[in-house]
Amino acid sequence: MLFEPSDEIYQAALDLHEKHKGKLEIRSKVPLKTKQDLSRAYTPGVAEVCREIAKDKNLAYKYTLKANTIAIVTDGSAVLGLGNIGGYAAIPVMEGKAILFKEFAGVDAFPICFESYETDFVDQVKNIAPVFGGINLEDIAAPKCFEVEDALQDIGIPVMHDDQHGTAVVVLAALINACKITQRKFEDLNIVICGAGAAGYAITRLLKCIGYDPNVCTMVHEITVCDTKGIIYRGREGLYNNKYKFILAEETNRARRPGSLDDAMAGADVFIGVSSPGVLTEAMIKKMNPDPIIFAMANPVPEIWPDAARRAGAAVVGTGRSDFPNQINNVLAFPGIFRGALDACATKITDEMKVAAAHAIADYLIKPTRDRIMPNILDKEVTKRVALAVKNAAVQCGCSREL
Amino acid sequence: MLFEPSDEIYQAALDLHEKHKGKLEIRSKVPLKTKQDLSRAYTPGVAEVCREIAKDKNLAYKYTLKANTIAIVTDGSAVLGLGNIGGYAAIPVMEGKAILFKEFAGVDAFPICFESYETDFVDQVKNIAPVFGGINLEDIAAPKCFEVEDALQDIGIPVMHDDQHGTAVVVLAALINACKITQRKFEDLNIVICGAGAAGYAITRLLKCIGYDPNVCTMVHEITVCDTKGIIYRGREGLYNNKYKFILAEETNRARRPGSLDDAMAGADVFIGVSSPGVLTEAMIKKMNPDPIIFAMANPVPEIWPDAARRAGAAVVGTGRSDFPNQINNVLAFPGIFRGALDACATKITDEMKVAAAHAIADYLIKPTRDRIMPNILDKEVTKRVALAVKNAAVQCGCSREL
Repeated sequence: MLFEPSDEIYQAALDLHEKHKGKLEIRSKVPLKTKQDLSRAYTPGVAEVCREIAKDKNLAYKYTLKANTIAIVTDGSAVLGLGNIGGYAAIPVMEGKAILFKEFAGVDAFPICFESYETDFVDQVKNIAPVFGGINLEDIAAPKCFEVEDALQDIGIPVMHDDQHGTAVVVLAALINACKITQRKFEDLNIVICGAGAAGYAITRLLKCIGYDPNVCTMVHEITVCDTKGIIYRGREGLYNNKYKFILAEETNRARRPGSLDDAMAGADVFIGVSSPGVLTEAMIKKMNPDPIIFAMANPVPEIWPDAARRAGAAVVGTGRSDFPNQINNVLAFPGIFRGALDACATKITDEMKVAAAHAIADYLIKPTRDRIMPNILDKEVTKRVALAVKNAAVQCGCSREL
Repeated sequence: MLFEPSDEIYQAALDLHEKHKGKLEIRSKVPLKTKQDLSRAYTPGVAEVCREIAKDKNLAYKYTLKANTIAIVTDGSAVLGLGNIGGYAAIPVMEGKAILFKEFAGVDAFPICFESYETDFVDQVKNIAPVFGGINLEDIAAPKCFEVEDALQDIGIPVMHDDQHGTAVVVLAALINACKITQRKFEDLNIVICGAGAAGYAITRLLKCIGYDPNVCTMVHEITVCDTKGIIYRGREGLYNNKYKFILAEETNRARRPGSLDDAMAGADVFIGVSSPGVLTEAMIKKMNPDPIIFAMANPVPEIWPDAARRAGAAVVGTGRSDFPNQINNVLAFPGIFRGALDACATKITDEMKVAAAHAIADYLIKPTRDRIMPNILDKEVTKRVALAVKNAAVQCGCSREL
């Protein structure tokens, strides 16, 4: 079993990056060979395009790269599992994300890596917004990621922290299909979420809000969120220091039950792990309701290995890894979400759009099985479905922009 | 004679921009089809590249897009002849510039257009520097352009305001060849510069500093700069309000001669116009020394039309236009300057590098004539020569970075 990537993979990655000097290039979509080409793409012709946009800046969607371009913005404060390595060291990940956007969804994505952690993130992002049709926030530590994203919701273009919402969307998709297989209804689910960082918070919020759409599903029965100190409950000491954990305490665990992860697992239907390697034991799974659903997404080493989870009785097991069945990976979500948002010239990405994305991913599999609750992450047809669903949802919820 | 671009050109430009939704796209330089591709370009392999850069951020030049990527940064405060039209309306020009960079020099250039004129330009640019190997400041109004550029000289990557220095470099190149034809020496030149904005200031500074390189040329005899109020001289009223005009007054016009442009022209060898249409008359040219050199670069309508200048006795006439001989256009300079700076992993762009660029452009023509003092702007061989000269100059002046 592969626990850590091999030195070969690391060396191959270094070689690839050195050979090409990074992974992104910027190219012209228009010809530029003759003086006539120049007169149309540049001076003097371009002046007329400028004058039009000066009259109505929404025309930037019609005449400029804004129509198809997003920024991937980070301060490098929470890169992969590497921690706060800063804006420079984050570049390779941002470039990687950018090529995924292009490959899967035809979205032009450019990395913006802030040099300083002390950056006034909100002002900076707002100020570079003109050329972008959307902002993908990436690899930003909690709780800063929440604050920044909240503060940027009204700048007129979609701003989404993928580590939160991309993950939440694929988890919701996986859960929809796992429920089909285990014949559960959302309204009966007792869910334990292990991890109260960016992903855990967003998953909780999305699972809470799916009830908002009466056509789709109703509110889950109960969610209990655990962090390293155990169950989060209203009144737990220290919660007032963290607005977002405070919100979790208010919105989950209605019984105000205290205790450990072990306590939380008793009678649960679903375990969603976005935490640390090995925190889930077979004994804990045995306390769950029959046919439990286990999503152990810590990466590269999950909360519990799939074989152990099955041995303990899990009906469906998903991880973040490509070498086990049921890979729950946000590459199924983020390219299509931004593609759909750009296609709608959306002003924001709403919960409705995220829920629509999750259903598009889940419904892509006509007949999910316990070893196939999620589409293959390299299947680009999924992205197309997600994009269309998100675009339609944007129109329905009044977040699309008419030109 | 074409005075203004035709409606046909404007419509063709609008059509082109609408058809392609702008002009730039972002593409992958590496394959991304298989899981193995993903493991090298993205996770898990990319983590190793991040770790290397975290140890030494200069390795961003080795492993990331920084090696070949610059930002074209504007606040849209002085776009073409359109004035302060803002960051949105500036996008088409920045995209146009970006495709010129790629077409002529293989440089990846991405537009950063600030939404607000009140932006703390210096902090913002500094903060987005990690992914860029250089910053091309563009279409920023004077005197802000000077202040911003000055404040950004020590951020570790080259920052150049092209409207200043690109223009200054091509003017110097044109002047070198015009002097060859009229058999003048730089040290004898009496030069009038009409226009004390971004271009006029930079031309003056570069013509002053060419004397710094003893192998190349010595200081010109005298420079007189005129603005809309006439000759700039030490002690002229109001100069203390504008630091940069104050500097011009200190560094030019040693005789402290007051007067009008007409007064300045008496006994001049060279007229360099970066000002307004029609400000130069035949009568003024007739006051100049024999075989005067006239560069009338106001665009699209020059300070004097070439036929009138010749009628008045001009030996060499250059303009900014492609439909007359001797087009003095900064596209001959900026792609090669940044190419050379990137090739050297330069920390800044010095006067020595600019002078080297000017000589490379001038020397490209083995035998300049009065109707051909400048290479064709579409000749990419010029860019290569400029790049090499700039790279070598960077190494010589200690501004290159060893990896």
